[in-house]
Amino acid sequence: MNPHVAPVPLNKAYRLLNHGPTVLVSASHGGVRNAMAAAWSCALDFQPPKVTVVLDKATRTRELVEASGFFVLQVPTAAQAVLTHRLGNRSLHQDPEKLSHAGAKLVDIDLPADAGTMAEAGPDAGPDVGPGDAIARAVPLVDGCAAWLVCRVLPEPRNQWIYDLFIGEVVAAWADARVFSDGHWHFESAPPELRTLHYIAGGQFYAIGESIVVPDTPAAG
Amino acid sequence: MNPHVAPVPLNKAYRLLNHGPTVLVSASHGGVRNAMAAAWSCALDFQPPKVTVVLDKATRTRELVEASGFFVLQVPTAAQAVLTHRLGNRSLHQDPEKLSHAGAKLVDIDLPADAGTMAEAGPDAGPDVGPGDAIARAVPLVDGCAAWLVCRVLPEPRNQWIYDLFIGEVVAAWADARVFSDGHWHFESAPPELRTLHYIAGGQFYAIGESIVVPDTPAAG
Repeated sequence: MNPHVAPVPLNKAYRLLNHGPTVLVSASHGGVRNAMAAAWSCALDFQPPKVTVVLDKATRTRELVEASGFFVLQVPTAAQAVLTHRLGNRSLHQDPEKLSHAGAKLVDIDLPADAGTMAEAGPDAGPDVGPGDAIARAVPLVDGCAAWLVCRVLPEPRNQWIYDLFIGEVVAAWADARVFSDGHWHFESAPPELRTLHYIAGGQFYAIGESIVVPDTPAAG
Repeated sequence: MNPHVAPVPLNKAYRLLNHGPTVLVSASHGGVRNAMAAAWSCALDFQPPKVTVVLDKATRTRELVEASGFFVLQVPTAAQAVLTHRLGNRSLHQDPEKLSHAGAKLVDIDLPADAGTMAEAGPDAGPDVGPGDAIARAVPLVDGCAAWLVCRVLPEPRNQWIYDLFIGEVVAAWADARVFSDGHWHFESAPPELRTLHYIAGGQFYAIGESIVVPDTPAAG
């Protein structure tokens, strides 16, 4: 990971997703690691921070999320547009070398012992999460992104089955301090290649653009 | 509504939200109309198109959504940043003139008779939707936005109660053809004031930025 990576307080973690960036979803289980792109991810709550993400039943990443009870949302940068598109267009099912073909480097991070509700992980935390191994868990982060949110699945079988919708509680978060610090994005002063990506379709993204600040003044009338 | 508004085919409606814009949520019931801002809204499915939106229990808009079984997501523009912030910061509960104080003009639109699954609206479509009035229903659209998605609530009481999370099926969609046509956004050629807004916190938005197109070429290796 690059030397600019810094922790993000959990009560500010929602801001990493609030502007609607396309994300990469990574997970690992049983020695298999994978990452995919997802445009359909969203903040769900402030504190404890929660997120939603849609994971199609055909994806290998979903299998790893269901088996491990954890996923990582990371916010890729404009410099990673090709990587993001490739991670979104190929499946590990078809291409066992998907990650290297996409140019993605995954780095395992040991979750800190005080990561959110990790220590309280019980029978509903996921199939293979027990009190003994919850603290020592490693999760795979995609190198070079602007931000990372490690999430514990809050199992909602009906949502997962009917809507492919997963809910996660954020238990740890980091960001590249060149573009996110003090609880705010700084796209206007950061290098342009660190701007976030916002996918439409057919290989077309938009980078995030210019800042617009509305003063908190009373409305007329 | 302005003369540039054109229907969006339902199978392309997800693209109106795919890049993660902040939305306005409007609804009406029993002669009361309201609109609020929401950063936490997301596409959920392609066809039939579905969406998610988080509606806090304290909001008057949520009461109108629950009572009517319908809501409209609309995508405000950079020109509407002040309006969007005001609709997000005040409640109709406290300010009965909230809409006019925010500078928001709501226009009632009669849903077309063939609007998605409207004609099939049954007992689960919402408290006051019966076969007789489903077709004639009017919904309030906020004037001046870049796009509109009319949604029928798919009732999921557990999500609504625990997570404040509502799921809707899109039954009609429109966009300002100056900025969205042929199933694609055209921010790069449209007037800059039609760019979408992406909220962070504390009155700060980012407008959507520059286009990045990744060719669909085979990956190296």
